[in-house]
Amino acid sequence: MDRSTRVRALEWKDGGLLLLDQRQLPVRVAWVHCETPAAVVSAIRELVVRGAPAIGVAAAYGMALAARLDPGTDALEGAARTLKGARPTAVNLPWAVDRVLGTILPLPEPERAAAAAEAARAIHREDEAACLAMAANGADFFGDGGPVEVLTHCNTGALATAGIGTALGVVRELAWRGRLSRVWATEARPVLQGARLTAWEALQDGLPVTLLADAAAATVVATRPIAAVLVGADRIAADGATANKVGTYPLAVLAHRRGIPFLVVAPTSTVDLDISGGDAIPIEERSGDEVRRIRGTLVAPAEVPVFNPAFDVTPPELITAIVTERGIARPPFGETLAPLVEGSV
Amino acid sequence: MDRSTRVRALEWKDGGLLLLDQRQLPVRVAWVHCETPAAVVSAIRELVVRGAPAIGVAAAYGMALAARLDPGTDALEGAARTLKGARPTAVNLPWAVDRVLGTILPLPEPERAAAAAEAARAIHREDEAACLAMAANGADFFGDGGPVEVLTHCNTGALATAGIGTALGVVRELAWRGRLSRVWATEARPVLQGARLTAWEALQDGLPVTLLADAAAATVVATRPIAAVLVGADRIAADGATANKVGTYPLAVLAHRRGIPFLVVAPTSTVDLDISGGDAIPIEERSGDEVRRIRGTLVAPAEVPVFNPAFDVTPPELITAIVTERGIARPPFGETLAPLVEGSV
Repeated sequence: MDRSTRVRALEWKDGGLLLLDQRQLPVRVAWVHCETPAAVVSAIRELVVRGAPAIGVAAAYGMALAARLDPGTDALEGAARTLKGARPTAVNLPWAVDRVLGTILPLPEPERAAAAAEAARAIHREDEAACLAMAANGADFFGDGGPVEVLTHCNTGALATAGIGTALGVVRELAWRGRLSRVWATEARPVLQGARLTAWEALQDGLPVTLLADAAAATVVATRPIAAVLVGADRIAADGATANKVGTYPLAVLAHRRGIPFLVVAPTSTVDLDISGGDAIPIEERSGDEVRRIRGTLVAPAEVPVFNPAFDVTPPELITAIVTERGIARPPFGETLAPLVEGSV
Repeated sequence: MDRSTRVRALEWKDGGLLLLDQRQLPVRVAWVHCETPAAVVSAIRELVVRGAPAIGVAAAYGMALAARLDPGTDALEGAARTLKGARPTAVNLPWAVDRVLGTILPLPEPERAAAAAEAARAIHREDEAACLAMAANGADFFGDGGPVEVLTHCNTGALATAGIGTALGVVRELAWRGRLSRVWATEARPVLQGARLTAWEALQDGLPVTLLADAAAATVVATRPIAAVLVGADRIAADGATANKVGTYPLAVLAHRRGIPFLVVAPTSTVDLDISGGDAIPIEERSGDEVRRIRGTLVAPAEVPVFNPAFDVTPPELITAIVTERGIARPPFGETLAPLVEGSV
């Protein structure tokens, strides 16, 4: 079985970063060409590229572009600060930037550009491999048996990573093993990553997908034989509390009520051991116009106040397991996560 | 304090039915003029008018239009069947149609048109009065104290009734009593009744409203001091199980988890004592294009399969109280609802 996808979120080509313009999906397939770190910052802010692992890889290439423009230490540290500030919640972003910076700062300036590009490519390749490992670990969670139905939220696939995805990578692996009868995908308002991206990506690869409004997920959980709810993560605290796309926490509450396993699938680079619990994770609030307007069309009074958090926090007691590329952590996460992250298992 | 609203969903004028075209809100305020029962059926199906009490009143006027066109028994019974078939879930629709039909069928044909119009106007006036009574009963639930924050779903206001609303009527009454600091309103995808209608209606009357995506409601419930979640109903079974706009059931689960009162506000005409539990309530599934497209714009692949239930069912164990115009029912609803509905209390 060929374990690959037709979908790519980004490509490093001829010394520039090509980003699939996810704002235009599913209507148009267009690419944005970035030649400066500032262009990468804009692309991350404006959701040309999104998904915690993908923005980590994009930011790493942003550092490679910075090192080519000016390999001086001040310039590199400035570029790193700007890239890390592009979005606040996903921890992969500062993780990837700091890794490139830490690799190249000890080197003489003339060597930094090539080393930065190599470090970014390494992060890219590791993310591809991590996706495959997470997919295998996550699919193993389902044990033996016949095809299953699962529910997922937002987009956690090839469009959110440099590989086959986190949660959606597990879904792909289930399909490759002949174990997937259906993946129910929430649309994920306000930015509609589920409707625009997951539905498109699933159809590209021939996965059996059904789209639904976020508000209908509870009906699916209550009335279908859902084997698990699978989500990604933007930042995981040391105790397992998980910040992910807004709408994740209510799905965890619903799954818990129905006794359905709730799996977080994320690379160990998403775990932030410096943060002890969910309360300390910064949650980005985005413009109210994301709610008031859809693709430019006004769907609410232009002057109505809006609350638009991009993420929510799922407490660890609602999470059945956290699937990483190095294995599956189970509760109590305060004891099981750190050894996985530190590579001591 | 003037207990009124600037918002009207329908008007009976010069022998015709004027319906505010809710499909066009909040962008345009336009009216649809119905002169035949078929026009009323189309208006109900296409959501020109929606909200269980409002479609009941509209259908009653539809019977008045039918009686004027042809007062023969066969014609009236045919019109009643068509009107009752316009949408399947809300029970106010068959309730109102059968009441007009039962009033006029015993009369000689020449008297039926005038009697039907009078019966429809009576239902209209009763709904107005029921809204005021529900609002008072619901606001009394909050006891004494300072201003509170509440959360509501979909649209249950003047646009959903012939009066000030059901759940949103309670919110209005809280404001009139100086007890409302904020009403958090979910947008209610896929048709966006919260964004398009509740936000508009709240601003018309100066209510302090904040709009949010459905997926963000859990964050509000978990992080704000919410005094109650208030929703309407399309049909309530004898045991209290409540069919209402999809997205209601997950809010009930979330409120229950946080110990927040969950109130269903509906006139007794919404209670269907012939249905013992939620499983027997017919749930309308609507076109997948409501999810794939928003105001005509494609937001998902045109060919993706969609699951689009218009309603969900909240089990009675998650409902704190059912507020009617005749008083508040508390669990066990199997014992407390029937006396309210039958008027024996």
